[in-house]
Amino acid sequence: MKQSQRQFPPDSVGLVQPQTLHCDQPLLLANGRQLDGYDLVFETYGQLNRDKTNAVLICHALSGNHHAAGFHTAEDQKPGWWDNYIGPGKPIDTDHFFVVSPNNIGGCHGSTGPRSINPQTGKPWGADFPNLRVRDWVETQVFLADHLGIEQWAAVIGGSLGGMQAMRWALEYPGRLRHCVAIASAMKLTAQNIAFNETARQAILSDPHFFDGDYAARDSYPKKGLSVARMIGHITYLSDDGMGQKFGRELRSGSFERGTDEPVEFEVESYLRHQGDAFSQRFDANTYLLMTKALDYFDLAREYDNDPIAAFRHARCRFLVIAFTTDWRFSPLRSREIVDALIGANRAVSYAEIDSHFGHDAFLIPNRRYSDVFRRYMLNICRESP
Amino acid sequence: MKQSQRQFPPDSVGLVQPQTLHCDQPLLLANGRQLDGYDLVFETYGQLNRDKTNAVLICHALSGNHHAAGFHTAEDQKPGWWDNYIGPGKPIDTDHFFVVSPNNIGGCHGSTGPRSINPQTGKPWGADFPNLRVRDWVETQVFLADHLGIEQWAAVIGGSLGGMQAMRWALEYPGRLRHCVAIASAMKLTAQNIAFNETARQAILSDPHFFDGDYAARDSYPKKGLSVARMIGHITYLSDDGMGQKFGRELRSGSFERGTDEPVEFEVESYLRHQGDAFSQRFDANTYLLMTKALDYFDLAREYDNDPIAAFRHARCRFLVIAFTTDWRFSPLRSREIVDALIGANRAVSYAEIDSHFGHDAFLIPNRRYSDVFRRYMLNICRESP
Repeated sequence: MKQSQRQFPPDSVGLVQPQTLHCDQPLLLANGRQLDGYDLVFETYGQLNRDKTNAVLICHALSGNHHAAGFHTAEDQKPGWWDNYIGPGKPIDTDHFFVVSPNNIGGCHGSTGPRSINPQTGKPWGADFPNLRVRDWVETQVFLADHLGIEQWAAVIGGSLGGMQAMRWALEYPGRLRHCVAIASAMKLTAQNIAFNETARQAILSDPHFFDGDYAARDSYPKKGLSVARMIGHITYLSDDGMGQKFGRELRSGSFERGTDEPVEFEVESYLRHQGDAFSQRFDANTYLLMTKALDYFDLAREYDNDPIAAFRHARCRFLVIAFTTDWRFSPLRSREIVDALIGANRAVSYAEIDSHFGHDAFLIPNRRYSDVFRRYMLNICRESP
Repeated sequence: MKQSQRQFPPDSVGLVQPQTLHCDQPLLLANGRQLDGYDLVFETYGQLNRDKTNAVLICHALSGNHHAAGFHTAEDQKPGWWDNYIGPGKPIDTDHFFVVSPNNIGGCHGSTGPRSINPQTGKPWGADFPNLRVRDWVETQVFLADHLGIEQWAAVIGGSLGGMQAMRWALEYPGRLRHCVAIASAMKLTAQNIAFNETARQAILSDPHFFDGDYAARDSYPKKGLSVARMIGHITYLSDDGMGQKFGRELRSGSFERGTDEPVEFEVESYLRHQGDAFSQRFDANTYLLMTKALDYFDLAREYDNDPIAAFRHARCRFLVIAFTTDWRFSPLRSREIVDALIGANRAVSYAEIDSHFGHDAFLIPNRRYSDVFRRYMLNICRESP
């Protein structure tokens, strides 16, 4: 099929093309190391208005990238990861907003990361790529905003790890955003969350094809370790209820007949293995380690005497906080802590707790109330004068 | 220290010694295969009375074994796995009961299992050891009861997978037990539970030292895979709250100071890795696979038209069901399903839902109300005439 023949849905942004911005200024990282320069791949959807007041920044989560909406080719079966919520007439309405969606550095989809060539050695960075913290991403996003001439975002928006970036923007660059939308996020991870991340990392680190992160140079890849890591993650992004409704105890093959030795396979097992396999083919193991560490390390109020209220007093924007009832990895409790701290800091915050069976993944999935609340909040942003 | 010098606590059963029972009758397994014979290692605590009416059977869970109480040597630092609940004056009171605690076949602590020699080949069974179902264990326990001359157990008791065995006893041999105590158990696993088990299995299967289960013959061992499997399990046996209280975000080493590249390690990471390592040194990977499969396959009512009420109508004993509030792997919901089915089947059931921060592990840990309820229930068994 020729691209011109493909009919995209009317609420799709249609064909999109990534751009690359090169930064040749050194970036001093939170951990003291320095990147001499970096590439930032990003996509944009919609039109920047003359006053440059309608720009929205999308911050992605652990396994996300810059391709948040639309299609790269007419043959693409799947649109970008947040296509349910970005497009004409959708909550992040590209008829009104100019949407900017970068791939974070440290990632594996074009922005400088462990797969990139380390200019000092001429070889892929691999495990030697610096550990990043959420604030480092914010710095690169500031560079991107400057490049695009965007002095102030109408909103900085993110789910999960993306919400952490949005909140960090609100504290570090209070004058540069009018709204912060933190969805299914948290001010810091719990011990259980860190424990799941560490177990996933151990699955990767203990794969003999990992070679201490130097797998690329050895033409190897820790596929199985990354697959197990993803399986762990995937279960925890779904809810017990949701999995029960989707899979129950349905068998994919085999039987429980007495006297049969036929191996039994449950649907949920086959599904999970498929998810793990597919992910391990498209994602980079060093990036997975880096992203989970950034999640673990994030602690919004650490540098504010561990006082979230004191932290949020630095913010000047308004906030929308959204959580999902069955999300146990970033539970509504964590979102309510954000809300409570914002109220304590006398900041305007709207909070919606959405009923959903889809656990943490709910922030990606169509949901009537979520969509309505999100759309109305964003529409009001369009109507306000900056 | 000489054994004679060691003072055991007065409520300990003290020094105990495992015994081995050999069965040379063939055991036809649920999957149609046959074991030509097997060894059963077990311990006993307390004295069997003249009428043999005071015997209690302990069924162990995934990683348990026959050593449920007391000490094997005077030097042992740790007693058996359920020492908190078995001993003089404890809920399973050895002043009143004769307690029998076998290691299940398929295990790795002396009873015939994947580490044993397959008489047909003269080599360790390894992965060729037959898949077992809960009912197979019940059959071996019947053989043990017959050997000990126990026509009817005062109670068959188990937590988790052990509770599944206790319930299977109640349905298959209704005349041979007066009480069934199912703690932190379920009539069948949920999809989420199966998913966690499958992920743990994949961690083992993808370890190149696993050699399709034939590691013993190759002088190898899938230590890292088993360690990751245990880490996955361990997180899910604890509660979010409990982990938060025990570890929070405490650091074991490193620092979050700006500009420091020192690697950060959270306490919870180090703890989990230690748990995984220690477990992988004392447990057998093929046994882990076999036990998790037995858990997944168990479905109390499968052969009763999937009707738990119809299933429990076969039982004649009384039931005690106990669940723990923060247990999300075998949640109180699952225990309430057992209770509801028992009520539907017009069977006597007592149910206690115990407040605890310890998740699924709570069934092993001292807890005042759990202990009180359990003790009183068991005391009443002593007083009744069989």
